[in-house]
Amino acid sequence: MPSKYTLAIHGGAGTILRAEMTAEKEEAHRKALLDALRIGEAILREGGKALDAVEAAVRSLEDCEFFNAGKGAVFTNDGQHEMDASIMCGKTRAAGAAAMVQGVKNPIALARRVMEASDHVLLCGPGARQFAREQGLEEAPPEYFFSEFRHQQWQVAKARGIIQLDHSKKYSTVGAVACDHHGHVAAATSTGGLTNKKYGRVGDSPIIGAGTYANDLTCAVSCTGDGEYFLRGVIAYDLSCLIEYKGMGLIEAAEFVIQQKQLALGGEGGLIAVDTKGNIALPFNSEGMYRAWVREGEEAGVAIYRL
Amino acid sequence: MPSKYTLAIHGGAGTILRAEMTAEKEEAHRKALLDALRIGEAILREGGKALDAVEAAVRSLEDCEFFNAGKGAVFTNDGQHEMDASIMCGKTRAAGAAAMVQGVKNPIALARRVMEASDHVLLCGPGARQFAREQGLEEAPPEYFFSEFRHQQWQVAKARGIIQLDHSKKYSTVGAVACDHHGHVAAATSTGGLTNKKYGRVGDSPIIGAGTYANDLTCAVSCTGDGEYFLRGVIAYDLSCLIEYKGMGLIEAAEFVIQQKQLALGGEGGLIAVDTKGNIALPFNSEGMYRAWVREGEEAGVAIYRL
Repeated sequence: MPSKYTLAIHGGAGTILRAEMTAEKEEAHRKALLDALRIGEAILREGGKALDAVEAAVRSLEDCEFFNAGKGAVFTNDGQHEMDASIMCGKTRAAGAAAMVQGVKNPIALARRVMEASDHVLLCGPGARQFAREQGLEEAPPEYFFSEFRHQQWQVAKARGIIQLDHSKKYSTVGAVACDHHGHVAAATSTGGLTNKKYGRVGDSPIIGAGTYANDLTCAVSCTGDGEYFLRGVIAYDLSCLIEYKGMGLIEAAEFVIQQKQLALGGEGGLIAVDTKGNIALPFNSEGMYRAWVREGEEAGVAIYRL
Repeated sequence: MPSKYTLAIHGGAGTILRAEMTAEKEEAHRKALLDALRIGEAILREGGKALDAVEAAVRSLEDCEFFNAGKGAVFTNDGQHEMDASIMCGKTRAAGAAAMVQGVKNPIALARRVMEASDHVLLCGPGARQFAREQGLEEAPPEYFFSEFRHQQWQVAKARGIIQLDHSKKYSTVGAVACDHHGHVAAATSTGGLTNKKYGRVGDSPIIGAGTYANDLTCAVSCTGDGEYFLRGVIAYDLSCLIEYKGMGLIEAAEFVIQQKQLALGGEGGLIAVDTKGNIALPFNSEGMYRAWVREGEEAGVAIYRL
């Protein structure tokens, strides 16, 4: 009997305050999330792979300028866009990731290619872009990544001399997790990192075990938040281990990781996770998290603030 | 009552065959390992920190041309030396790492500085080197990293068109783990990666949770082996979780990770680990692993092959 499919996506967690949101802006974000969800869901509905669904959903979010990934990536200290992404297949535990990549339109497609067409898991910097070029992936000029909004964020951060997450502590990394009809899970994460970042700073998004993890036996996870704390907490794999070794259920384990362990370490953020039993977990300890989710045969959900 | 100190170091695992070793070469390797062990032990004996002991031991191994880290780092595809290192404190779970770093004499010192003097955990590429320079860390010219032996390995790998681990499947990453008199543990790992590597490939050594992990509650771990499999298996943190969530002892958990889980995933290699109870684990599933260890009040041990 085929599994019921599930899909969840996020567009980042953080201090998303109702007071700063216009009804129009909120509606536009909700629509972008639902569009990405539907693109991924169409693949799952037709019996496609979880891996294809999470990649397609993340591509859609990368192509949307609202989120800090792909087109909407923030500016680094020297005015560049350095992006990170990772993807993992729960069936084979194969994984691919790229960090500090410039000029590649869809970093998540590059991560997928690293997984499937290289002997490696993680490629960084100009070498990763060279690999993308050799693989024929679409490139994009600096103008493609330019937006007045991000540019202004960068100017403000530079003037104040700070390295910061997306404006006002929004960690608008994007991600997707899915379980397909075949009972396989997958996870994908993509980000532009910190506004005004320098020294080649890399966060948790391209790191298997920290920002992304997938294993059919346990769950698929994509994280968003204070990257340094997610790296130190090895958060994505921590969730998997609580299920595998401690026997916790997905929902309980996800809440425990984000509300207890991650807060104790000091990190703000959230995660999205699914297992092969139809469970979906969307915990966060920040003010809000852009998120959408769907379970086969049920209506899709979309939310920004706490419910 | 103060804890008894422990210290273990490795100079890499792999296919180290007795037939390829001369008595002279073997003796030189054993001496280099014991020298590094004694440098770290001196710090622990005087009541110093585990963090200082592992850094000092790894520096000593980085300064020795026998091992693929620091001075002895292998050549990349374009004739450079790109090094990765990471360090973690078990008391605070603070961590620092650097990847794809060129021209820094001791990458482990840079990882320590990232941990203590930056807001970040992981810095990559030229930015990491810029940070090292601003921090006043010692740099070294390309000649410093040159050795006829490594150059020849690179020529052979280039001619055969392969990206490979240190010659004949030796993964001669270096690492150290320690528990100090105060009951705190720490772990450090450093590597030059793969001979003839390209595309900015990064392995498990600079990744917290994969190549390095430390937590007073569980253990301190440093891994060596087929980096891609250690990344996918999140091996260092897996060991910690088996202790924390499954209640396994250090020795049992370390054997299980390397002999069962890691082999099932496909990866060859080993790890060194200590806990705060005086236990030391040194499992590997390859032919050999360069290693040395000492427990307070006992004689130091050094070994290359299976015992």
